[in-house]
Amino acid sequence: MSHYLALTGGVGGAKLALGLTRVLPPEELTLVVNTGDDFEHLGLHIAPDIDTLTYTLSGLANAELGWGRGDESWNCLDTLGQLGGETWFQLGDRDLALHLRRTALLRAGHTLTEVTAVLSQQLGIEPRILPMSDDPVRTIVHSNQGRLSFQHYFVREQCKPRVEQIEFEGAATARPAPGLLEAIASCDAIIICPSNPFLSVDPVLSVPGVRQALLDTPAPVVAVSPIVGGTAVKGPTAKIMHELNLATMADEIANHYGELIDLFVLDELDKFLDGQLPVQTLVAQTVMRTLEDREQLARVVLAAVGRPPDPQ
Amino acid sequence: MSHYLALTGGVGGAKLALGLTRVLPPEELTLVVNTGDDFEHLGLHIAPDIDTLTYTLSGLANAELGWGRGDESWNCLDTLGQLGGETWFQLGDRDLALHLRRTALLRAGHTLTEVTAVLSQQLGIEPRILPMSDDPVRTIVHSNQGRLSFQHYFVREQCKPRVEQIEFEGAATARPAPGLLEAIASCDAIIICPSNPFLSVDPVLSVPGVRQALLDTPAPVVAVSPIVGGTAVKGPTAKIMHELNLATMADEIANHYGELIDLFVLDELDKFLDGQLPVQTLVAQTVMRTLEDREQLARVVLAAVGRPPDPQ
Repeated sequence: MSHYLALTGGVGGAKLALGLTRVLPPEELTLVVNTGDDFEHLGLHIAPDIDTLTYTLSGLANAELGWGRGDESWNCLDTLGQLGGETWFQLGDRDLALHLRRTALLRAGHTLTEVTAVLSQQLGIEPRILPMSDDPVRTIVHSNQGRLSFQHYFVREQCKPRVEQIEFEGAATARPAPGLLEAIASCDAIIICPSNPFLSVDPVLSVPGVRQALLDTPAPVVAVSPIVGGTAVKGPTAKIMHELNLATMADEIANHYGELIDLFVLDELDKFLDGQLPVQTLVAQTVMRTLEDREQLARVVLAAVGRPPDPQ
Repeated sequence: MSHYLALTGGVGGAKLALGLTRVLPPEELTLVVNTGDDFEHLGLHIAPDIDTLTYTLSGLANAELGWGRGDESWNCLDTLGQLGGETWFQLGDRDLALHLRRTALLRAGHTLTEVTAVLSQQLGIEPRILPMSDDPVRTIVHSNQGRLSFQHYFVREQCKPRVEQIEFEGAATARPAPGLLEAIASCDAIIICPSNPFLSVDPVLSVPGVRQALLDTPAPVVAVSPIVGGTAVKGPTAKIMHELNLATMADEIANHYGELIDLFVLDELDKFLDGQLPVQTLVAQTVMRTLEDREQLARVVLAAVGRPPDPQ
């Protein structure tokens, strides 16, 4: 049996992840998810990237908002505001149930890996979702407004502070999720989804052993560029690159991953970079507007790493 | 300035408490509330009697259900059920906000007394609500089905197990809420509301110092019978009395409070007991169906302890 690993953050990465789940048998896919965005809020363990992926794969995602669940109500949050509680992080009534359940299971002594497996099964998701680590790694943004935890930077301050440095607190002592290093070593290919390299993929790479396992594995590592035509498809990637004095071009992403990757997927808009990078490149339609776009990109990436096309 | 203390549990007691708030200036009333029913559920600190009182006094109570808030939705609970979570304790979406906020404030290091003051102020409640203790006291029901925490007995098992003994875990080392003993010593009267004596008032009396303060205070202590015409107005009081081999008659309640009380308020239905008890008795309409009933009983009780009637 073939086995593919996809490394992903939230929205952008989850699009390709969804495509992969639709073209691969579930047992052939493991989705490795950034937990650097996780935080404790109102006493709840919130895991934004796992949630986005979970809701995307279960068809529950709120397409309009781009986060949270569809068919949502906000009665708890409204009341919390009336009681003087914090409302900058918007938690819908149905979404809350997931955080309550996860938190209760974690407090009962289960690991995040175990809890994620239980909850994704409850939501009917078949491929394995693996948090990068069961230990806390927290993305901290050092900015012109000081040291901000990721959600404070991303949601409360709406990415407005100027990023100076990004820290992954706890990474030095975190252990990779059970089976992660073995999966990297033995899989058929690793796909780095078009998530923010600095905020969503680097935390995964910061977990001790992960970077080395990617360098050591005989499997090809392919990254899909989140930068298309000089700007980010989604989120603050371009803004952060600018603040870190990087040109907001796809080649900077390839440079950032460097020797980790064997193949870099460029959008058609960036075709002019094809063959110009120190890494092998492939040009594809990477902007995923429709479900068909997601499936098509998944097929192109899988074909590039040698998976024979499914009989149609 | 006069000052009155009312000891209360949930629904039954909260009716008289509401009456008292409507006939007394807010600064003249302190409501001392049972916290023996409190429990941790889904990681939240839930204080059912404080909540019932808070919702009753703020006009938010769900009149139809008899617990929780009116204008409620159940989206979180429904989703929690779908995720395999516990749903036997019904938490509405708006109600959840109160528990989230309380829990967050407690985790931030505030005492239950402080948190209750903040939250009742947010809800526009003027009289002081004082939890009996900031330390955990937990009512445990020893039953033919074993040892049950109060909410498991009361809600999950719907009071079906046969009560053998009632324990107030933690009571031996709990400290009365700040100012409680002083208030008992210096107030003009103490009113024991028609709550369950065994499950709602005894926990308050179990807090070290409270019983002695009631015995020592020069202020009159008046109890309103929760048993009318040989049965309980509300809840499992009669069933429990039967299981504890007590006759389900109002005089057994007076005997239970014994030397603690100076006056016992009987319902008109129990008029035949008037003058037959070792404590002074007063006959009144104690079944409170309407808001006017609540106010009227409050006036009768206050007059009995010597408060001059308001000029009408």
